[in-house]
Amino acid sequence: MEKLEAVFDHIASRVNVNIKPMGIDVKPILQNAIPRERHLLYYAFYALTTDHPLSFRFKNSNLAGSYFLGKTMVDRSVLYKSDIRGDELKRKGDIVEFNGVKTKLFYDEVIRIMNSFLVKTLVHNNSKNSEMPEVFRILNTVAMHFSNIHGTTTEGVYLGPFSTADLSVLHNCVVGDFAYVQAGEVSREIIEPGRVWIKAENLFEFNYIFPEGVVEQYVKLDENGQITGKLIEYVDETKEDFVPVYSTICPEPLENIPESSYVSPYAVIKGRCEIGENALIVQRAHIENSVIGRGANAQENCYIKNSVFEGNNVTAHGGKVIHTRNGKNVFVGFNSFIHGTEDAPIVIGRDSIVMPHTIIDAQEPIKVPENSAIWGYVTKQADLDTHCISLDELAKSTGELTIGNLTFTGDGNAFVQAFRHRIEHIREENGAYYNGMDKTRGHAQKTQDACFNILQPFQSGPEMGMYPTMAIGEQFA
Amino acid sequence: MEKLEAVFDHIASRVNVNIKPMGIDVKPILQNAIPRERHLLYYAFYALTTDHPLSFRFKNSNLAGSYFLGKTMVDRSVLYKSDIRGDELKRKGDIVEFNGVKTKLFYDEVIRIMNSFLVKTLVHNNSKNSEMPEVFRILNTVAMHFSNIHGTTTEGVYLGPFSTADLSVLHNCVVGDFAYVQAGEVSREIIEPGRVWIKAENLFEFNYIFPEGVVEQYVKLDENGQITGKLIEYVDETKEDFVPVYSTICPEPLENIPESSYVSPYAVIKGRCEIGENALIVQRAHIENSVIGRGANAQENCYIKNSVFEGNNVTAHGGKVIHTRNGKNVFVGFNSFIHGTEDAPIVIGRDSIVMPHTIIDAQEPIKVPENSAIWGYVTKQADLDTHCISLDELAKSTGELTIGNLTFTGDGNAFVQAFRHRIEHIREENGAYYNGMDKTRGHAQKTQDACFNILQPFQSGPEMGMYPTMAIGEQFA
Repeated sequence: MEKLEAVFDHIASRVNVNIKPMGIDVKPILQNAIPRERHLLYYAFYALTTDHPLSFRFKNSNLAGSYFLGKTMVDRSVLYKSDIRGDELKRKGDIVEFNGVKTKLFYDEVIRIMNSFLVKTLVHNNSKNSEMPEVFRILNTVAMHFSNIHGTTTEGVYLGPFSTADLSVLHNCVVGDFAYVQAGEVSREIIEPGRVWIKAENLFEFNYIFPEGVVEQYVKLDENGQITGKLIEYVDETKEDFVPVYSTICPEPLENIPESSYVSPYAVIKGRCEIGENALIVQRAHIENSVIGRGANAQENCYIKNSVFEGNNVTAHGGKVIHTRNGKNVFVGFNSFIHGTEDAPIVIGRDSIVMPHTIIDAQEPIKVPENSAIWGYVTKQADLDTHCISLDELAKSTGELTIGNLTFTGDGNAFVQAFRHRIEHIREENGAYYNGMDKTRGHAQKTQDACFNILQPFQSGPEMGMYPTMAIGEQFA
Repeated sequence: MEKLEAVFDHIASRVNVNIKPMGIDVKPILQNAIPRERHLLYYAFYALTTDHPLSFRFKNSNLAGSYFLGKTMVDRSVLYKSDIRGDELKRKGDIVEFNGVKTKLFYDEVIRIMNSFLVKTLVHNNSKNSEMPEVFRILNTVAMHFSNIHGTTTEGVYLGPFSTADLSVLHNCVVGDFAYVQAGEVSREIIEPGRVWIKAENLFEFNYIFPEGVVEQYVKLDENGQITGKLIEYVDETKEDFVPVYSTICPEPLENIPESSYVSPYAVIKGRCEIGENALIVQRAHIENSVIGRGANAQENCYIKNSVFEGNNVTAHGGKVIHTRNGKNVFVGFNSFIHGTEDAPIVIGRDSIVMPHTIIDAQEPIKVPENSAIWGYVTKQADLDTHCISLDELAKSTGELTIGNLTFTGDGNAFVQAFRHRIEHIREENGAYYNGMDKTRGHAQKTQDACFNILQPFQSGPEMGMYPTMAIGEQFA
C-alpha cells in the first residue's frame, strides 16, 4: 500500500499548509479515520445516463465505495463511500449570472477533486463560484463522516463530521462538528461546532448556536479521527442493510414503484413502504416502514423510519426522520435529526421548514404548527417557544430578532422567500411536478435509466488500494 | 432497442457478403440465437492487472456478460457471454518470427473485434497473423455457442456451435458444428461438421471425420439458431451455478487455495474439490467434486466433475471431463467430451493426449493406455482399436496411416513433437512450473491480482442494450 500511504501523506501536507495555522492537524485524522484495509474492500460506482455527459478521469486516487454521476476528475485524493452527484452540472453554452453579470460557459462544467480526503461525504454541485464556472472544485479539502458539500467549492477546508458547507465558496476554513454554513464567499473563518449560520450580504443573517454540551452528545470527533455520539450510533445501526445492496451486481428492481418515480438500486427500502408518483429516493438513502408521498424526495444519507411524508416533501442530504408525520411541502434540512418514538411521536404541519441541522429528540409528543420555521435543539413541546416561529411572522421582521440562542437580523421576508424559492427549485429539479412533458422531467425521471460502471482498486502489490489511472468517456474513444 | 437492431443488421450484412455464397445465411441465426432482452441483463467484466496494459475501447457494441483481459477494441459487434483473453498479447518491441523472418512490434498488440457476433465464444489470442502482428483481428465473424477462436484471426468466418478455429488465419470460411481446424492459412473452405483437421504444410496432416449421425446427437443447430444435443444439455445443467457468481460484486475468495494458484472469482467450485499448487482455474470453468493436481489447469468453459487430475494436466477451452481419472501430464483437447459414469468410469494413462473434439461417452469402463493419442468417437473399450495409438508408434509413421475414420499422412514424429511442445508451452504460460522466481510466473500467478471493471448497458431508450461508447486506459487520462 506504499502508493496509498504516499497519497495520504500528500493530502495531509496540502491541507495542513492551509489549516494547521487555524489549529487543526489533519495528519492524525487521516491516519486513523478509516482502517487502511477498508480502502481495498469496496468498488466505486459511476452512474451513466443519456442525460449526463460521460466523462470520468481519475489518477493516483482511491475511490472506495464512492458513487459518481456526471463529468468528474479525481486526482491524488481518497474518497471513501462518498457521493459525488453532478446532475446539476452546467453545460457548454449555458449562460450563468454572477452579481448581475452574465457569462457563457466555454466547456461543460466538470467536478474536479484534488488533494482531498472525503469520508461518506455528499458532494452535490450547483456551483456558485464566479471565478471559473466551468469547474466545480474541491481542493485541499478534508471532509469527515456525513459532511455535506453542496453547491459549494472548497479550497483548503476542513469539515468536521455531520457538518455542511452549503452554496458557499470557502477558502481556508474550518467547519466544526455539526456546523452549518451558507454565507457566500468565506475566507479564513472558523465556524464553531453546532453553529448554524446563514448569511446573505446586506440582506439578512441567521445565527444559531447549540447550547453548550449538546453537540458532543450527538457528534464528537476525537483527535485520532474516531467519531462518537447519537448520530453515528443511529446511522451505524443500519450499516448491515447496505451490505447486500452494494455487493450485488444488479440489485433486483423493487415492485410497486410508480413509473414516474426513481428508487436508486443503491438505496435500502425495508419493511412496508409506500412510494408515491414523482418521488425520488437516491443512493444511500435508507427508508423503513414509511410512506413517501407524491413528489417527495429523500436525498443521500437520509434515514427515514416509521414516518409519513404527505407529498412534495424535501428531505435534504443527511436528514434523519423517525416516528414523524410530515404534512405537505414540509422541508427537512441537511443533517437534521428528527427523532420521535412510538410514545413520543412528532407531527410537523404543512409548509413548515425544518432548518438545517435541527435536532428534535422528542421526550414527549411534539407538534410543530403549519407554516413554521423550526431550528436548533428541541426535546419537549415547550421548547418550541424559543425554537419555532410562524413563517409569516418571520417575514415581517426587519430589524433584529432574538429568540433563545437564535439571532436573526435583516429582511425576514427576503429570508423566507429565499428558502421557499430554493425548496421549490429542489422540487422542480427532482421532478416532483413531472406531468409527462419533457420540460417537467427532473432527477426522478432522468436518473431512471442510469446504468453503472463498477470499478475495483488493485488488490495487491505497491499499487494495492489505488484505482488504476483511467479515463472513461466517448471523447477518448 | 433500435440501435442494437441496427448493429445486428449491420453484422448480418457484413458477414453474409462473404458467407452467403458458401451456403450460410447468418441473418435468421442472428435474429434468433439469443432473445433480445438477454442482451440487457448482463454486465461485462474487464479484468485489470499490473501485468497487462490497461486499454479498452468499445463503440456501438453490446458486450453482455463478456469477460475481457488485455488491450481490446470492440466496434459494431455483439459479444454475448464471451471470453476475450488477451494475456498473451505481444508488447511493443517484441520480436516475432514468421516463416523464418524476424520483425519487431511497433505497438502493443491489440485485440480488434469488428462487425462480429460471438456467443459464449472463447477468444484466446496468440496471433499467427503475419500481415499485421500488432493486431489480433476478429472481423465480420459469427461464432456460435461454445466455439473457440484460439490464436487465430478470422475474417468473414462462420463458426458453428462447439467448433474450434485453432492457430489458423481463416478468411471467408465456414466451420461446421463441432468441427476443429488447425491448418495454417485457410481461405474459402467449408469444414464440415465433426471434421477434425490438423495440417502443417509439407509436414503432416491429421484428418478425422465423425461417423454419420453422431455429431447431431451431441451438437445440432437448426436454421433458426436453436441449438440442441447432449453437449448443450450437459452445459445447461450447470447454468444456475453461475448466477450467484456473476451477480455478486466481489465473490468471496475460496479457502484452501494455495498461494501459487489462481481460481478466478468467476469460476464455480462446487462440492468437495482439491486445488494443488500452481494450478489455474479460469473464469467460467465449472469444477465439481474433483481434484485438480499440482500445475494442472482448467480453461474457460471447462466442466470437470467427479474427476481426478494427477498433475501438470491441461484441459483446454471447453473440455468436459466427468468420472475420469487423468494421469500426470494428460492433455484434454478443446471441446472434448470425456463422459464416464459411476458404473463406467474412464482412466487415462499418464502423458496421453486426448485430441481436440474427442467424444468418449462410456457405456462400460474404459482405460486409455499411457502415452497414447486418442481421438474421435469412443463408447466402448474395443473402440480404442480404431481410435487410439501409442505416441511412440505414431512418431514412427512416415507415409500414410489409416485407422478407422482417421487418415494421418506425413511426419509422425513432427506431429507428436509439435503437440508435446505446445502442451509444454501451455503449462509454462500458465505457471505450472512456478518456483518463486519471476521468470517462472505464468497466468496462475499473474492473474491473481486482477481487479475488475464491471460495465452495464443502457437500460432504456433507443440506446437500450448498447454499451456507452467508452475508452478506458491510462493513455487517455
